[in-house]
Amino acid sequence: MTLVPAYTATSATAPLTPGVITRRDVGPKDVLIEIAWAGICHSDIHTVRGDWGAVPYPLTVGHEIAGVVTRVGAEVTRHRVGDRVGVGCMVDSCRTCANCRAGYEQYCLAGFTDTYNGTDRDGSVTQGGYATHIVVDEHFVLRVPEAIPFEKAAPLLCAGITTYSPLRRWQAGPGKRVAVVGLGGLGHMAVQLAHAMGAEVTVLSQSLRKRDDGLRLGADDYRATSDPATFQDLANTFDLIVNTVSAPLDLDAYLRLLTLHGTLVNVGAPPEPVPVTLFTLFENQRSFAGSKIGGIAETQEMLDFCAEHGIAPEVETISADQINDAWDRVLASDVRYRFVIDAATLGA
Amino acid sequence: MTLVPAYTATSATAPLTPGVITRRDVGPKDVLIEIAWAGICHSDIHTVRGDWGAVPYPLTVGHEIAGVVTRVGAEVTRHRVGDRVGVGCMVDSCRTCANCRAGYEQYCLAGFTDTYNGTDRDGSVTQGGYATHIVVDEHFVLRVPEAIPFEKAAPLLCAGITTYSPLRRWQAGPGKRVAVVGLGGLGHMAVQLAHAMGAEVTVLSQSLRKRDDGLRLGADDYRATSDPATFQDLANTFDLIVNTVSAPLDLDAYLRLLTLHGTLVNVGAPPEPVPVTLFTLFENQRSFAGSKIGGIAETQEMLDFCAEHGIAPEVETISADQINDAWDRVLASDVRYRFVIDAATLGA
Repeated sequence: MTLVPAYTATSATAPLTPGVITRRDVGPKDVLIEIAWAGICHSDIHTVRGDWGAVPYPLTVGHEIAGVVTRVGAEVTRHRVGDRVGVGCMVDSCRTCANCRAGYEQYCLAGFTDTYNGTDRDGSVTQGGYATHIVVDEHFVLRVPEAIPFEKAAPLLCAGITTYSPLRRWQAGPGKRVAVVGLGGLGHMAVQLAHAMGAEVTVLSQSLRKRDDGLRLGADDYRATSDPATFQDLANTFDLIVNTVSAPLDLDAYLRLLTLHGTLVNVGAPPEPVPVTLFTLFENQRSFAGSKIGGIAETQEMLDFCAEHGIAPEVETISADQINDAWDRVLASDVRYRFVIDAATLGA
Repeated sequence: MTLVPAYTATSATAPLTPGVITRRDVGPKDVLIEIAWAGICHSDIHTVRGDWGAVPYPLTVGHEIAGVVTRVGAEVTRHRVGDRVGVGCMVDSCRTCANCRAGYEQYCLAGFTDTYNGTDRDGSVTQGGYATHIVVDEHFVLRVPEAIPFEKAAPLLCAGITTYSPLRRWQAGPGKRVAVVGLGGLGHMAVQLAHAMGAEVTVLSQSLRKRDDGLRLGADDYRATSDPATFQDLANTFDLIVNTVSAPLDLDAYLRLLTLHGTLVNVGAPPEPVPVTLFTLFENQRSFAGSKIGGIAETQEMLDFCAEHGIAPEVETISADQINDAWDRVLASDVRYRFVIDAATLGA
């Protein structure tokens, strides 16, 4: 085991503090990564705050990780020392269930191992990417194309794949009208990806405050959901709506915007059940769906797609001592559009 | 206008009574049908009881109609006198919206005209099939194949197409595992249709009371939903679940039975919103959908499919004076599996 510098939560309410965490020795199939940048995802905050269940403090979060391979185990074949790589929300899965075998490790029937706050094979609690180094099985390590700088690669591993997967599954492309609800970390990726796939893209945001950004990122239209006319004008319009907003919305109002055979897919969600009116689903044979990150092969495909199409998140780079302020700004939706932490400052 | 014998509701609570209703003169595009049999659908009762909104009494219900063409308008091209035909839940739609043009009249953006309790083009309230005759625009009149007796054709026009459409849309077929929730009028059609399409079919019913029927109709498995083991054994199993039960169910429990990319589609529904847990939809990228009858072309396809595969509803034939008793038995779920009224007895 090795001790590495990290920023760590010691309770649900205290600020994160610098310290050290342990990483396991590099096993035969493992890759040691020197982290360059780590993204800040709203999930990090939900987890530490205990919104999603009890937390075994101290905990280091972070599941948007990009860096360089500095050591590989004897049996590693997919990566070499010096490779540019990334790690997302998963660091392990059973590898044997039907879903894992089909490349959908995110739907592992035994449950995948979260990058942080998961239970590793040795029983220890996994620790995430707000650290200088991480050791991960090679299967869960992605190649980062040269065209994508590390600080922009990191958010793709969660915000990118979370929106890419439903866009692919519900066939965003030429002739399809796609709406993206919310222009935050996930939404600003969804707009770019859907546009690059050839779809006609509309942003549905509370106000028109970020309209210029939305259009610059590739949206064809931008509407305020605070304006009731939006829901009248756009009734029966969209083939696909990707809802990136975790807060409860009037889902029926959004479902009514779906055209024939349309799907509203949530990638964020409140933990409480949401009410859905079946008579709204009956019209146009509509669907309401959920989607969770993406499989490893699909994540690699997304990274390659982003490199090919020049797509990247817009980021604000910060040093370690700014993490707690950044969390406050995430909670206030005051970030355009993702904070990434310079991992070199974590050990300073 | 013509007066024809019918059974009519005069209030939400009184028994139906024999009388006469008016039918419009046969217009250039109209077909006059002498009704042979009319099915009893639970919707008839919901409508008359006022469960779905105010009702303009007196009202004659019935939207599962089979009979013979006895007159055609001058411009009718699709049907001839003597043809065996049927009418389902729709008698008109706008014909010009995108959905109508694509053959999805059931999702007409202006709203289709219900066979009963709808507003006809002349402003009158449409009257349904518990009558000896009906006048319908030829576009909404289906051909009934010779192989299907009239009394078995009638229920296909609602119970048949309501289950056929989602089975086709979500590709029930070889290699697919389909569950049918509820073995009533709709469920017993869904089992036969899914089996004929080549899917592996499981019935999920409250008890095992109708198990023999289910297996005889083509189910490969039959499980009681009153047994908690059912939900454990069948977790992550089905590609498609067709829920024919209108009463509220614990939908999350059923959603957890869906495998990767599976869909639970409701064809019956309570009017109140139903709660859905998004974390259940996230797993396996599941969908929750609705479906409403089917388009005219698809309904014809369904009738031809049933004729080709020897599929038909199981019916109890009754005379007009048994209608009120039959309604009581429908409300008690005491029918295997559809009542059909001998229209010849309506004028007796």
